[in-house]
Amino acid sequence: MSQEWNGFVKGIWEKEVNVRDFIQKNYTPYDGDDSFLAGPTDATNRLWAQVMDLTKQELAAGGVLDMDTKVISTITSHGAGYLNKDDEKIVGFQTDKPFKRSLQPYGGIRMAMKACKDNGYEVDPEVVEFFSTHRKTHNAGVFDAYNDEMRACRSSHIITGLPDAYGRGRIIGDYRRVALYGVDRLIEDKINQKNSTSSTMTSDVIRDREELSEQINALKDLKKLGEIYGFDISRPASNVQEAIQWMYFGYLAAIKEQNGAAMSLGRTSTFIDIYAERDLRNGTFTEEEIQEFVDHFIMKLRLVKFARTPEYNALFSGDPTWVTESVGGVGIDGRHLVTKMSFRYLHTLQNLGTAPEPNLTVLWSTRLPMNFKKFCAKTSIESSSIQYENDDLMRVTHGDDYAIACCVSSMRVGKEMQFFGARANLAKCLLYAINGGVDEISKKQVGPKYRPITSEYLDFDEVMDRYKDMMKWLANVYVNSLNVIHYMHDKYCYEKLQMALHDKEVTRWFATGIAGLSVVADSLSAIKYAKVKTIRDENGIVVDYAIEGDFPKYGNDDDRVDNIAADLVHEFMSYIKSNHTYRNGIPTTSILTITSNVVYGKNTGSTPDGRKGGEPFAPGANPMHHRDSNGAIASLASVSKLPFRDAQDGISNTFSIIPNALGKDATVFAGDLSVDLENFEPSEDK
Amino acid sequence: MSQEWNGFVKGIWEKEVNVRDFIQKNYTPYDGDDSFLAGPTDATNRLWAQVMDLTKQELAAGGVLDMDTKVISTITSHGAGYLNKDDEKIVGFQTDKPFKRSLQPYGGIRMAMKACKDNGYEVDPEVVEFFSTHRKTHNAGVFDAYNDEMRACRSSHIITGLPDAYGRGRIIGDYRRVALYGVDRLIEDKINQKNSTSSTMTSDVIRDREELSEQINALKDLKKLGEIYGFDISRPASNVQEAIQWMYFGYLAAIKEQNGAAMSLGRTSTFIDIYAERDLRNGTFTEEEIQEFVDHFIMKLRLVKFARTPEYNALFSGDPTWVTESVGGVGIDGRHLVTKMSFRYLHTLQNLGTAPEPNLTVLWSTRLPMNFKKFCAKTSIESSSIQYENDDLMRVTHGDDYAIACCVSSMRVGKEMQFFGARANLAKCLLYAINGGVDEISKKQVGPKYRPITSEYLDFDEVMDRYKDMMKWLANVYVNSLNVIHYMHDKYCYEKLQMALHDKEVTRWFATGIAGLSVVADSLSAIKYAKVKTIRDENGIVVDYAIEGDFPKYGNDDDRVDNIAADLVHEFMSYIKSNHTYRNGIPTTSILTITSNVVYGKNTGSTPDGRKGGEPFAPGANPMHHRDSNGAIASLASVSKLPFRDAQDGISNTFSIIPNALGKDATVFAGDLSVDLENFEPSEDK
Repeated sequence: MSQEWNGFVKGIWEKEVNVRDFIQKNYTPYDGDDSFLAGPTDATNRLWAQVMDLTKQELAAGGVLDMDTKVISTITSHGAGYLNKDDEKIVGFQTDKPFKRSLQPYGGIRMAMKACKDNGYEVDPEVVEFFSTHRKTHNAGVFDAYNDEMRACRSSHIITGLPDAYGRGRIIGDYRRVALYGVDRLIEDKINQKNSTSSTMTSDVIRDREELSEQINALKDLKKLGEIYGFDISRPASNVQEAIQWMYFGYLAAIKEQNGAAMSLGRTSTFIDIYAERDLRNGTFTEEEIQEFVDHFIMKLRLVKFARTPEYNALFSGDPTWVTESVGGVGIDGRHLVTKMSFRYLHTLQNLGTAPEPNLTVLWSTRLPMNFKKFCAKTSIESSSIQYENDDLMRVTHGDDYAIACCVSSMRVGKEMQFFGARANLAKCLLYAINGGVDEISKKQVGPKYRPITSEYLDFDEVMDRYKDMMKWLANVYVNSLNVIHYMHDKYCYEKLQMALHDKEVTRWFATGIAGLSVVADSLSAIKYAKVKTIRDENGIVVDYAIEGDFPKYGNDDDRVDNIAADLVHEFMSYIKSNHTYRNGIPTTSILTITSNVVYGKNTGSTPDGRKGGEPFAPGANPMHHRDSNGAIASLASVSKLPFRDAQDGISNTFSIIPNALGKDATVFAGDLSVDLENFEPSEDK
Repeated sequence: MSQEWNGFVKGIWEKEVNVRDFIQKNYTPYDGDDSFLAGPTDATNRLWAQVMDLTKQELAAGGVLDMDTKVISTITSHGAGYLNKDDEKIVGFQTDKPFKRSLQPYGGIRMAMKACKDNGYEVDPEVVEFFSTHRKTHNAGVFDAYNDEMRACRSSHIITGLPDAYGRGRIIGDYRRVALYGVDRLIEDKINQKNSTSSTMTSDVIRDREELSEQINALKDLKKLGEIYGFDISRPASNVQEAIQWMYFGYLAAIKEQNGAAMSLGRTSTFIDIYAERDLRNGTFTEEEIQEFVDHFIMKLRLVKFARTPEYNALFSGDPTWVTESVGGVGIDGRHLVTKMSFRYLHTLQNLGTAPEPNLTVLWSTRLPMNFKKFCAKTSIESSSIQYENDDLMRVTHGDDYAIACCVSSMRVGKEMQFFGARANLAKCLLYAINGGVDEISKKQVGPKYRPITSEYLDFDEVMDRYKDMMKWLANVYVNSLNVIHYMHDKYCYEKLQMALHDKEVTRWFATGIAGLSVVADSLSAIKYAKVKTIRDENGIVVDYAIEGDFPKYGNDDDRVDNIAADLVHEFMSYIKSNHTYRNGIPTTSILTITSNVVYGKNTGSTPDGRKGGEPFAPGANPMHHRDSNGAIASLASVSKLPFRDAQDGISNTFSIIPNALGKDATVFAGDLSVDLENFEPSEDK
């Protein structure tokens, strides 16, 4: 047993890389209240003041304080950077100084150039030349393989937000492994994995072996990153400060290497608490010291910054990095997973003040301890900065060591990853069904030349028949576009450090997404239960609709339309599933457009539900605005009928409520604060 | 019909890219003698004197006159370069001046660095950094995927000369297409090919689409290369000068992009003759002018130079580029393919003097016209610079529009390519069979731990049984190593311009090779017909053999041993065929080590035939030196029993003869002057 493991309960985790086993054998559930928590130290206050000052400078400078234009970011590309070395208990920045954004062109050189240019910087011409001529990028690869149909679907926004010009994200390295095992053991493990591949060199085996080599190199670089800051992380961490620092080096290496749309952290607090408990027991550190480590760690996570374009930032109202940390939840043995560290993480919202990053996400269960629930409620009310997700639902699929990537995508840490897949616009797809594949805005033939609807009034059965064909087509183009994207991402922008912190055999979720669900449900309901008259332009293209009579609307707990919505999700998912997926990815879908519903609406003509062209969709799985007229419970009931088994990547419902409606005391806030990435459309289309 | 095609006989070649059809419809067989040929012009003499002078300077400078160390070679990387612009009728150099070698690191940065360093140059550190950190090379990719067994086989030289650190070569672009169609038409054709791929994006389809995009980009660059020299090659060539120039631009683009071990030209003379005949008919050019174009073209081909290491040059006694041009042959309709241009090409050996490059190869048939045969014989005697290969044999497999890549590898131009695969050392494999996989020199366990032979005297059946198992193992490791190599070559060093001058669906020959054939045949014969006693070292490893009695030796037309050799080839080929091959390559093998037999012998211990450790093997399929004691005819008869159907990539027999033995007049010289590449072992092993 490594001496760093003294005092830990033994288990299979010693013999194999198995963080969950270590946690289960060693963690101390905490049922107490928040009275043990310590406030910020002087050093914490000084550092945070410095951060606030730099933030002010950054805002004054127009959003970016400094950018690399020549040095290409790698795990070891920069020397050490500090705010104030003497005060910092947890160290490490993406570049050699805080607030300086790194240059990451692997995803796409033009995107990197634009991010610089729009902020007043210029990428070194030699770097541009190199990445244009000799070193292909993900973006260039994708557009080399896209077919005309895919490009047309992308341009017309029937498929949109595809990660073809930016890092797909949604991969969580198991950064805890760095702390528990040290890097040398992880390298050894990867060498064994490489030796255990087949000797029949099919292309798949060759790819696996090359990826494992890349992973081993990334781990070697990770050790060097530790050395740059004066740490030997080849060995396991020996106390809580080192455990946080080692883990952070793992995460830092990931963000130095990748500018993924979501660079989530995982589920680290209960793991770290094991070290804290041992140190408290041994008198190594005080509560105040431990909270200081946590505060400084969280501070670092708040300072994760990428070079991005103003369009990207405008869309997300900020500079989102999705450093999602999943806190709490319940174990499959029935014990909750809340520890003192769960409190300490959330307590940073008090010690440092509120912030959107890291995205602290509580894995909510009815069986969380009451004291923790109360603490969450209190912190939510004070900070508005906690996200909640349903652990009771997700635990069924993912067990008790999963985490959230981005806003809702759940995956077992180190064992599952996601191929992120943006959205298909099902509302526009309905219009294509009516117009025989002709886009209602551009008037171009984008979809297949199926028979259009020629009647004046829409017939439900006829529309459904055509709609199913069109959805089948859309699912095919969509999944195949994603096949191209993920093939090229692996080829030109492989997440070698993140994947080095995964098992050899990884489950890959092939994520797709749906937009415009409630628009379609209401449209089909109108066609079925009212009379919908087509209004055509001079060429016979249906450009608007007139509704005669009333119809049931999604969001009022009315099965007549709610079932249409539920069936749609199931139907579309079955079409998705009928396609070949890259690396045998397991198809999932999500209904979680949150801010981009506005852009979707803008790019979609008038729909048969009475929504006029350009008007926003409802967000996620929400009913259309003002149509859920039977009250909150009925509205929620409609949403809850959507089949989660068909949309396991997440269903979101944006729900605002007047605080007083929930009672006069502190109570649990349970909204969904997520936004997503699906309508980021950088102008890299070739 | 393009106006450039006026006067040509129409055909399917107008509708589709089909150079063979154009040739068949338009060429003029020539049965006359060489009396029409013109001597060198003053411009030719001046240019050649300049070349001779630069060659002298180059030699004086130690073999290299100038090298690029910063500019990375691409099709468009350099401005125009000339010897003397006014004199040159055909223009274009690999860099911006003659004799300056370009920098081509895609195959391997360390090889590129070593080529520079050994010649007194240093690659720019930024280029090194880029290709070490951000832009992976073929060599790096291969070593990331090799397994320990492959590395061990490579180190012990049981498999050797693998193209894992240099360009595989053996791909011939159909450069004639550039002249006949112009680049725009070829781009259009490639776009159509891309549009005709499947919309189901499996990894294979994605790879095909990306490769087609790369090909299209290469063709666009090819047009730019024309522009750099002031030519618009987007349109077809309109006369013989343009046809040669257009074709040469195609070839020039290929050698600017790739430093392949063999960069062969194809089969161009009869194609070009069609333009010459039209120009002569129309009075556009005189014979003297046409010969001048040819002389200047061949001069350019003589000046193809790559940056290579001294080891490479030492091995090949020079600076070989394998600019092989195939001349003559007979059509499948029975007409021979000799034209005046066949004479003109060979005549350059007179006008410019003799030279090893381009490797002018006559596709020999009994049915070639007598005047051409005589001219070949005369030119051979005067220049010793013509290679001959058996058209009657190769035509059966490849039809009448194939060409030779490198020394003997035949392929249909633009329709077939080869994955080059170096050699397996079957003699060493026999020793492994005897010693249970332990290398007789390093004493390391390289092969599988099969039972060794423990008896004092070798038993034929026992040895054969073990030898078959060991060959099966060797074939497996060998083919899988090649799978890795060709996967990575495609990934990191793809021949986009050469493949752009191929059809969409290409037949890929998966070439392997055999070394040590006669050593094994004689060894097995000794074991069978004499008594062979093992001599063991202190650990029981057999390190030498004592033969008691005599035995039949390969090379004496004795079926007892000749059949052993023939069976061996068939047996090994059947093992090769039982393995998965990358991209469904069709396995072939060759028996053609020519100079490297010396190195093979050096790395192989004593063998049961009486050959002592370190002594050379016989070259190719030759009998061992001095053992063919029954005269030349018996020796040739033994070789001729080897099954060509099992070794379609070529069987070579090195045969020297005293000129007088062939008669007292000029006569046909029919040796095989080839050398090959198999034992080039750069020190890039990681």
